[in-house]
Amino acid sequence: MQIPDWLAQQAARHPHRPALIGAGMILTFAELDRWAGMVAAHLQQIVSPGARVALLARNRPAFAAVVHAVPRARITLVPLNTRLTAAELAFQLRDSTPALMIVDHDLLTLARDAADNCPIVTLEELTTSTTTPPLPAPPVDLDAPHTIIYTSGTTGRPKGAILTAGNHWWNAIGSLINLGLHDDDRWLAVLPLFHVGGLSILLRGAIYGIPVVLHERFDPTLVRRALSEQQITIVSLVTVMLQRLLAIDPAPFPSHLRCVLLGGGPVPQTLLEQCAERGIPVTQTYGMSEAASQAATLAPNEALQRLGSAGKPLLPVELRIITPSGQIAAPGEIGEICLRGPTISPGYLGSPPRRPDEWFHTGDLGYLDSEGYLYVVDRRSDLIITGGENVYPAEIEAVLLSHPAVSEAGVVGLPDPEWGQRPVAAVVCRQPITTDDLIAYCRSQLAGYKVPRIIVFVDELPRTAAGKLRRYELRAWLQARER
Amino acid sequence: MQIPDWLAQQAARHPHRPALIGAGMILTFAELDRWAGMVAAHLQQIVSPGARVALLARNRPAFAAVVHAVPRARITLVPLNTRLTAAELAFQLRDSTPALMIVDHDLLTLARDAADNCPIVTLEELTTSTTTPPLPAPPVDLDAPHTIIYTSGTTGRPKGAILTAGNHWWNAIGSLINLGLHDDDRWLAVLPLFHVGGLSILLRGAIYGIPVVLHERFDPTLVRRALSEQQITIVSLVTVMLQRLLAIDPAPFPSHLRCVLLGGGPVPQTLLEQCAERGIPVTQTYGMSEAASQAATLAPNEALQRLGSAGKPLLPVELRIITPSGQIAAPGEIGEICLRGPTISPGYLGSPPRRPDEWFHTGDLGYLDSEGYLYVVDRRSDLIITGGENVYPAEIEAVLLSHPAVSEAGVVGLPDPEWGQRPVAAVVCRQPITTDDLIAYCRSQLAGYKVPRIIVFVDELPRTAAGKLRRYELRAWLQARER
Repeated sequence: MQIPDWLAQQAARHPHRPALIGAGMILTFAELDRWAGMVAAHLQQIVSPGARVALLARNRPAFAAVVHAVPRARITLVPLNTRLTAAELAFQLRDSTPALMIVDHDLLTLARDAADNCPIVTLEELTTSTTTPPLPAPPVDLDAPHTIIYTSGTTGRPKGAILTAGNHWWNAIGSLINLGLHDDDRWLAVLPLFHVGGLSILLRGAIYGIPVVLHERFDPTLVRRALSEQQITIVSLVTVMLQRLLAIDPAPFPSHLRCVLLGGGPVPQTLLEQCAERGIPVTQTYGMSEAASQAATLAPNEALQRLGSAGKPLLPVELRIITPSGQIAAPGEIGEICLRGPTISPGYLGSPPRRPDEWFHTGDLGYLDSEGYLYVVDRRSDLIITGGENVYPAEIEAVLLSHPAVSEAGVVGLPDPEWGQRPVAAVVCRQPITTDDLIAYCRSQLAGYKVPRIIVFVDELPRTAAGKLRRYELRAWLQARER
Repeated sequence: MQIPDWLAQQAARHPHRPALIGAGMILTFAELDRWAGMVAAHLQQIVSPGARVALLARNRPAFAAVVHAVPRARITLVPLNTRLTAAELAFQLRDSTPALMIVDHDLLTLARDAADNCPIVTLEELTTSTTTPPLPAPPVDLDAPHTIIYTSGTTGRPKGAILTAGNHWWNAIGSLINLGLHDDDRWLAVLPLFHVGGLSILLRGAIYGIPVVLHERFDPTLVRRALSEQQITIVSLVTVMLQRLLAIDPAPFPSHLRCVLLGGGPVPQTLLEQCAERGIPVTQTYGMSEAASQAATLAPNEALQRLGSAGKPLLPVELRIITPSGQIAAPGEIGEICLRGPTISPGYLGSPPRRPDEWFHTGDLGYLDSEGYLYVVDRRSDLIITGGENVYPAEIEAVLLSHPAVSEAGVVGLPDPEWGQRPVAAVVCRQPITTDDLIAYCRSQLAGYKVPRIIVFVDELPRTAAGKLRRYELRAWLQARER
């Protein structure tokens, strides 16, 4: 099914309305649309339709121009995490085989280390070329792949989740029906745009026809100032960001801020209570890359009465809790959270596609209370969420095991007052090595947020008879050791 | 494509929120959902899936229960205009061949005169049966026919426009993106529910999860009171209703009323200016049955600056003006308004279906200004819109010609300060007959609003060489005669 390009249509509807505010500039819908058309024309000259293009860039206005340009050139975007190492990026590039890599000028060294044979163009070069007239926006095919977002895989290898234009569209509509839409809405994007949480703000802005205020990174002082001075009404945050915002300033948040959409993993009850006391309209959400961001979200008017719940599934998403025996769980019974609907990714790169009527098994554990409110108990059985970033223990374990001195490795997430969780490792060594050397080795292979803060040397790891790591037992032991 | 039943999902999300307020009762979303399930179960016992069911009823809560029940029983609804004569209804029943006719108790005589062999059940009997447990809501198939709405045809015979569930869904979403959605929204329905303008309010209420306040008929005093006491934020009206509301009370409208959605034909500029002066947030819209209601609508914040415009097409509707030579019109150039998109009817009963990429030619004349705002110049070349009802001259002419005394007949719409337009006829007689007799004859064949208020006897009608009525000439002559 095809619909008109949403940015082009909103530009026709509201040409003079601000669309993107950031880096000291204000772009109207007409200007952003024209920019996207020019970038699309430029891309079309160097990349064939149907190809993929990787984007390694910070939260710059030009990032948004590329996001809106790629469907016009019939290209699929592969946003890359700027915090990854060259080795991690190289894997994603080999897996997604982009025809071009668009790179922020100050990430060029990293990109060249990762790129192998992939041609590189800088974001600045691609988006400031003014020689090409804008490409007219063709209709958007809702079934066409729009984005490929890498998520940490349970096997330790990231997987590229394919998101169609329709996944993004339906997600934006579901969020709209839940959060409402006011004439003065302005959404602040401080989450990285390479994550679905940030990317989806750009798409919602274009679909709703509202301004997105873009910050290059999260700086609590700048965010506090923007909330007031830029008349922000909605902001998407992860827990650690909200904590820092509260810490730097006890003053109340401005009253026009009607929704703090809080995602990215577990939220301490005390933080929610603190926000309730201070009248901060926190709305918890449960989402993931494979669901094109939010899958379940509290309604804003329930935010202060349902502390700790991630709400109910957004229209038209279906949500089920499946017990280990494959039954639909009773209220209060914990099981695996399963999702279905037009917002859910049709599958991963290189894996067989999911049928539309097939349930997507998130691997996350949760339950529904008697009134149908979702409570997320544990993000997948072993997932570590640190500062809103997903980290799979298996990926860190694989790196530790690749060191010649290490014979066994087990990684768990331990609670961290600032980051939510932090990775901690236990290793069995076959040769002597220091903690510092092992951490330095990890740092050369892994993004900084994945590097274990503590590595404990042990004689053996708790394992099942079959040799499988008893991760819960290891976590309990490591946690007890810290006290 | 299938999505969960919207009423069922909103009932799961907000069970205790009011969904329908009217006839002295308040139904929550859970109650309305349960009621719809019970009506669906009852319908399933007496009508086979795939059949059609006609509904001849006033604006009662039970009407809403039937609207939400029919998709659950896999039935297509044919809402019938309660103002039609038995002969007019009989045509629509023969054309749509419903398996059942659901009838308001005080319309039973009319229904029996029209029904021929179609079985009849009263609305009360169908919707108050409590013996059947509610039918669980199956998913909504967006491609399945949901409603058949009869529109006056240019040939003088009404045509049944098929509207799919998807047509209604996408229309609700397009309106949502344009009008926004507030937590306290309440939509007042005073338009007849058998018209798309009223019906679409019921569907939007269920899709958005907001209360619909239902009035059985338009009574300006009750509407003024409801606007204040029921905290109405949006009301859909036609011109004559708005004029009466202004006339009965000079007091300002309550400030929580954020949108008066004004559709159903031409709006006098003086009325718009009067509303602008009084700060009434009038938003003009251009819609029709075949577009599942609104196709283009002003944005609320432009309502007072773009007087007379019907705004821009709603997402994701496309709109084009086509000149008589088949070209896309230049800005300011008048042509036929053509529409395309997922809100547009796939076709009429008994006619070949329209392809999704095919433009729907509305027959209405209009132009886009240099900024893309739509101005509707004339609803189809010969359509008369009186009090929000569409009347085709050809239908009245056919009745006049069926009288043995009449040899030729021409009908036009003349401006009317109260109703927008009113039908006026000119006839050539072969035998003597009085105006009163001819009007009485029309009244026996046509709904009251279609009956010409004035019939003028003439020796001949202005015709082209080919014998075709020169309708513009007749209109000018009849209008000059009135002065």
